[in-house]
Amino acid sequence: MSDSKDDKATIIFQPSGRRGEVPKGINIIEASRMLGVDIEALCGEKKVCGKCIVRVEEGHYEKYNITSSKENASSWQEEEEKFITAAGKEKGFRLGCMAKIEGDMLIFVPEESRAGKQVVSKAARDIDIDDDPTVRVYYVQVDPPTFEDPTGDFERICNGLEREYGLTGLTCDIFTLRTLPDALREGKWAVTVSVWNSKEIIRIRPGRVEKAYGLAIDVGTTTVAAYFCDLTTMKVIDTVSMMNPQCKYGEDVMARITYHMTSENGLKKMSDDIIEGLNELIQKAVDATHPPKKKKKKKKGEDSEKSSGIIEDGEFMEIVEEGKEYLRLCREDVEDITIGFNTAMHHILLGLNPEYVGMAPFPPVIHHSMDIKARDIGVNINPSSYLFVLPIEAGFVGADNVGVLLSEDPYKHEENQLIIDIGTNGELVLGNRHKLISSSCATGPALEGAQLSFGMRAAPGAMERISIDRETKEVDYKVIGRDAWRKFSEPEEMKAKGICGSGILDVLAELYTAGVITKSGVFNKKELKDCERFRKNPDTKQPEFVLAWAKESSIDKDIVITQKDIRQIQLAKGALYAGCKLMVKRMGLEKVDVVKIAGAFGTHVDRTKALTMGLFPDCEIEKIVGVGNAAGDGCRAALLDRKKRVEANWCSRNVEYIELTVEPTFQQDFMEAMQLPHMKDEFPHLRGVVPDDILDQ
Amino acid sequence: MSDSKDDKATIIFQPSGRRGEVPKGINIIEASRMLGVDIEALCGEKKVCGKCIVRVEEGHYEKYNITSSKENASSWQEEEEKFITAAGKEKGFRLGCMAKIEGDMLIFVPEESRAGKQVVSKAARDIDIDDDPTVRVYYVQVDPPTFEDPTGDFERICNGLEREYGLTGLTCDIFTLRTLPDALREGKWAVTVSVWNSKEIIRIRPGRVEKAYGLAIDVGTTTVAAYFCDLTTMKVIDTVSMMNPQCKYGEDVMARITYHMTSENGLKKMSDDIIEGLNELIQKAVDATHPPKKKKKKKKGEDSEKSSGIIEDGEFMEIVEEGKEYLRLCREDVEDITIGFNTAMHHILLGLNPEYVGMAPFPPVIHHSMDIKARDIGVNINPSSYLFVLPIEAGFVGADNVGVLLSEDPYKHEENQLIIDIGTNGELVLGNRHKLISSSCATGPALEGAQLSFGMRAAPGAMERISIDRETKEVDYKVIGRDAWRKFSEPEEMKAKGICGSGILDVLAELYTAGVITKSGVFNKKELKDCERFRKNPDTKQPEFVLAWAKESSIDKDIVITQKDIRQIQLAKGALYAGCKLMVKRMGLEKVDVVKIAGAFGTHVDRTKALTMGLFPDCEIEKIVGVGNAAGDGCRAALLDRKKRVEANWCSRNVEYIELTVEPTFQQDFMEAMQLPHMKDEFPHLRGVVPDDILDQ
Repeated sequence: MSDSKDDKATIIFQPSGRRGEVPKGINIIEASRMLGVDIEALCGEKKVCGKCIVRVEEGHYEKYNITSSKENASSWQEEEEKFITAAGKEKGFRLGCMAKIEGDMLIFVPEESRAGKQVVSKAARDIDIDDDPTVRVYYVQVDPPTFEDPTGDFERICNGLEREYGLTGLTCDIFTLRTLPDALREGKWAVTVSVWNSKEIIRIRPGRVEKAYGLAIDVGTTTVAAYFCDLTTMKVIDTVSMMNPQCKYGEDVMARITYHMTSENGLKKMSDDIIEGLNELIQKAVDATHPPKKKKKKKKGEDSEKSSGIIEDGEFMEIVEEGKEYLRLCREDVEDITIGFNTAMHHILLGLNPEYVGMAPFPPVIHHSMDIKARDIGVNINPSSYLFVLPIEAGFVGADNVGVLLSEDPYKHEENQLIIDIGTNGELVLGNRHKLISSSCATGPALEGAQLSFGMRAAPGAMERISIDRETKEVDYKVIGRDAWRKFSEPEEMKAKGICGSGILDVLAELYTAGVITKSGVFNKKELKDCERFRKNPDTKQPEFVLAWAKESSIDKDIVITQKDIRQIQLAKGALYAGCKLMVKRMGLEKVDVVKIAGAFGTHVDRTKALTMGLFPDCEIEKIVGVGNAAGDGCRAALLDRKKRVEANWCSRNVEYIELTVEPTFQQDFMEAMQLPHMKDEFPHLRGVVPDDILDQ
Repeated sequence: MSDSKDDKATIIFQPSGRRGEVPKGINIIEASRMLGVDIEALCGEKKVCGKCIVRVEEGHYEKYNITSSKENASSWQEEEEKFITAAGKEKGFRLGCMAKIEGDMLIFVPEESRAGKQVVSKAARDIDIDDDPTVRVYYVQVDPPTFEDPTGDFERICNGLEREYGLTGLTCDIFTLRTLPDALREGKWAVTVSVWNSKEIIRIRPGRVEKAYGLAIDVGTTTVAAYFCDLTTMKVIDTVSMMNPQCKYGEDVMARITYHMTSENGLKKMSDDIIEGLNELIQKAVDATHPPKKKKKKKKGEDSEKSSGIIEDGEFMEIVEEGKEYLRLCREDVEDITIGFNTAMHHILLGLNPEYVGMAPFPPVIHHSMDIKARDIGVNINPSSYLFVLPIEAGFVGADNVGVLLSEDPYKHEENQLIIDIGTNGELVLGNRHKLISSSCATGPALEGAQLSFGMRAAPGAMERISIDRETKEVDYKVIGRDAWRKFSEPEEMKAKGICGSGILDVLAELYTAGVITKSGVFNKKELKDCERFRKNPDTKQPEFVLAWAKESSIDKDIVITQKDIRQIQLAKGALYAGCKLMVKRMGLEKVDVVKIAGAFGTHVDRTKALTMGLFPDCEIEKIVGVGNAAGDGCRAALLDRKKRVEANWCSRNVEYIELTVEPTFQQDFMEAMQLPHMKDEFPHLRGVVPDDILDQ
């Protein structure tokens, strides 16, 4: 096979965004390996497990300059019919091990076909909230109607609810009202009524039921995560997450806003996709409350597998773990949802034109929270239930940030807190109970691993901790999925694949303290003279530093960090630092008392290294804390305590938004902040942490 | 053609319900004539006008014991394609002049194909209400956003609405919110906002718009009528009506409740049909605000018809009447709807199980009024708008009666009013500002003309006034559509077809005062000895009295009233009178001060004759008043004055419902009341009106 252009095809894998040229004639699984995408293939391409289902998209993708088509894969094979329906075939689904590459393709890898599932920190933090959910259940018994008292069903239970619980002035959603007459009679004049906000009846079940459930959903630009909560015990019963299916329209919010402005029905497509995604996520949460099912094998002469807790159910058997209680919930058991997101995701999900949020002065369509019937936007839960959409602060500080405020409540404390939520966009809040200001800075996706040569999500194989020896420049590291560091392992055990967010923070700080790069971020050629890890890339001629050798990697390539990668990280951290600095100045402060880092990022980050990198202004190292998924916790607070919903609206309108880019010194500050801790005097707490000669360069 | 069973087919026409056997081989138009159904056929069956489109229904109709099928009509003809689309053909539409009868069929005649369109009293009465509609429009101008004030669009207009009009705490429906950003920019930061109940924004239009419209709809068991109102001037701009498309499931409410209980998806089918009907009615109201359109004829060499006001619009031309203003509204311009109906229609339309309303003690699902998003039940108007469903009093006294109360407000007067709303069910209210009671009595549909040999709707050709000479027993009458009475006309000019409601009241009173029947309702053979109008029907052998000879009729048959017809009318009036009497007794009254007769019936009825018949207890003849479509007027009051909505709920819960059938004397009273003014002492006001010898029989 020659290497001419005609023998190669451009392949893009979604949602990871990995792309590259691969030789024609190989199958999709082989291509995925070449591009570092993990597709599940349990049977080792023996064409029998059906795990490697992917979808070939149709259409022209301006962004990648390719036209993807089902026709660019080899022809459909009979074996594929075992795993893919006719409808699926129509949609472009193929087995990765069967379909060979014959031209350019954009290939979507469904969640269930992804081998390296994202690692999500499951444990929800304890947060301090009152037990006052918006949706509550009430059991009520009434007398049957007679000629003396032929009062209607609705008024009958309202009278009961007033008598027993003091509830007055209730209304009833029409969808629920339709279930009332039969529920009352089935329950022999006793029903359990779900009441929303002490105002509206949203569900009626015959007899006595103790439970109601809700979901607190955090819709991120890249990931969607939800807490599944018991509204009666306040407990989190599960945490579920997924990729944001909108990733295919662009990796950051500006790309998606642009997609809306340049594509026909772009907003509708993106909105439909995320709603469909939410419905899948809800189904996933609900399914997890049932015992897993296994396809029933029917053998001749064998009656049925009666042994140890296996329950038959049609063609499938439930594998019931002994002693385990299964809630066995259905979608209708989800009776409340709270949802937080950045402003652009908020607008796109709700079908609100996001165009003006992307244009100065970035006004959102609405700040206020909203109670929206889930059915009105196509979310399939209990038909009469509401979604509570958290309020947003400004064009670039969304409802997710309101969630962070709700869970951290800086407005109740005297000390000045700087809260940083690092995502594709950095959101900043500074202040205390006297005053709060917020802002945002365009960090770009570099700190999340995107746009770097070997950046990746926090999934198995991702380097999450990195350490570089000052003398030898040897690199030690730890990958997700393996407890031991490299130096305690054989190279072939490492299976490194890329670098995730926390590794990215480490790497810059380590490159700097080990003298590999100077404080301006360029490779220190003098120090690296004899270092075999430092080299020029044979193709691009750009300098790069090898973090892991091909033999240690699962992708059969050296994992490197390039000069360009370093610049990307510097740009991100510079934007963040400059933003923080301007806010501190605006508040007239000398220093901040506490730095809180929210997001998955905040859970894993090494605070010393974050400070070394100069992500934010100097602070006592002990006062730097990771607060985990604070945005999600805030959504959960709003789910379980309705007073938090009022508080959320208060927050959103009482945090003053500062537009940093219009500050006269912003550009200057930003340029300066790109240096590694750029003014040593600004970081007294690094003295003793970073070697003096490095700091004093 | 022999007369054997095999040569005949059973045909039922809907919505009229006319049915009978016709010889096979004739076309549908011919069959319709035989059964007294008028189908429009302008061209005289020359197959060129396309006016006679009908629909052949598919399915088994238990009630009529027939199976109707498109296959039972002769095969499709090419000429039909000119007037019926492929989709229409699929649905069973045919030209009545083309399709021949080859088997049993249930044939639906669409409103536009009916020749004898119903005569509806268009003029809405003046009712005394405040100008305080639930939906109001507000014009607001705001400043565009800046970096100093990047407030969101929604909060920006809310601030404007508070500043200009003092409106606070507004929310915005999500469907409307989606239109906000573009409307604001299109209107250069000035918009017209429609606000529902001072609470919720339900429409936003760029710039200044002065108008908003609403519909007050009265859904009857047989007819649906609506007032189309300007919410800013309080004026009725049009009245539209249609047959209730549910008629095919049964003529009265019990038949429809039974249909729900015995048919799969019966409730859904009936609900879908009436909703579809409402949507057609709304479209009709809206279309009438545009000038009529005429298909454009293209002649060679002719440029265009520029003369006098004809505007071209694609393939059609608008026929613009000079000097006339056309509102040119669309569905979205309907921003509010109020709706009243009896309890069964209420339940069926809203998809609420009507089963228990039909079973003692007849509890409804709900009494309270409801604000329901029109979209939630599939009504296509402005997407964020609400329907206001009037509250209901009891199982057999519905929201329509609340409408009557709202327009007549007996609860504000000292005199005791008896309000009678005669429909398939008689609804009664009695009382004054100290106390009100209501009840219902099963009058059956006889007083509306159904179930009588020649009963019909109030349409052209219906005998609406009848007078019988005491000596000669000669009958004089007046038909709708012709001003002159019979005796001033040639027989062939009369075109009588049947008897409508007001004629039915006349006929019984006249038969009685002319001595044709005795006070017990049987034909007075002694008096009729030599009367040629009195005879035994050659087929049924039942006695009957000829009201109009075949030569005077458009159906080529003698129009008669049979002994059975008279019994039906007596049963109806007996039920009504017994109900009234029991209510008067229950209230401890000697007499009633005012009798009000609501409904189309009340508009046309001759009050002396109504009293003569003994429809209701004795009352000064001057104090008997017809109050027209009071139910519709009440809906209109609720549309134009939101305080009436509160009043409606008050009424519905403060009128005491009396179940008459459980009163111990009911059966006795009912039997007695079947006599024509059954106890002469009970009707002192008839003395001098009805001849003494008749009264003293």
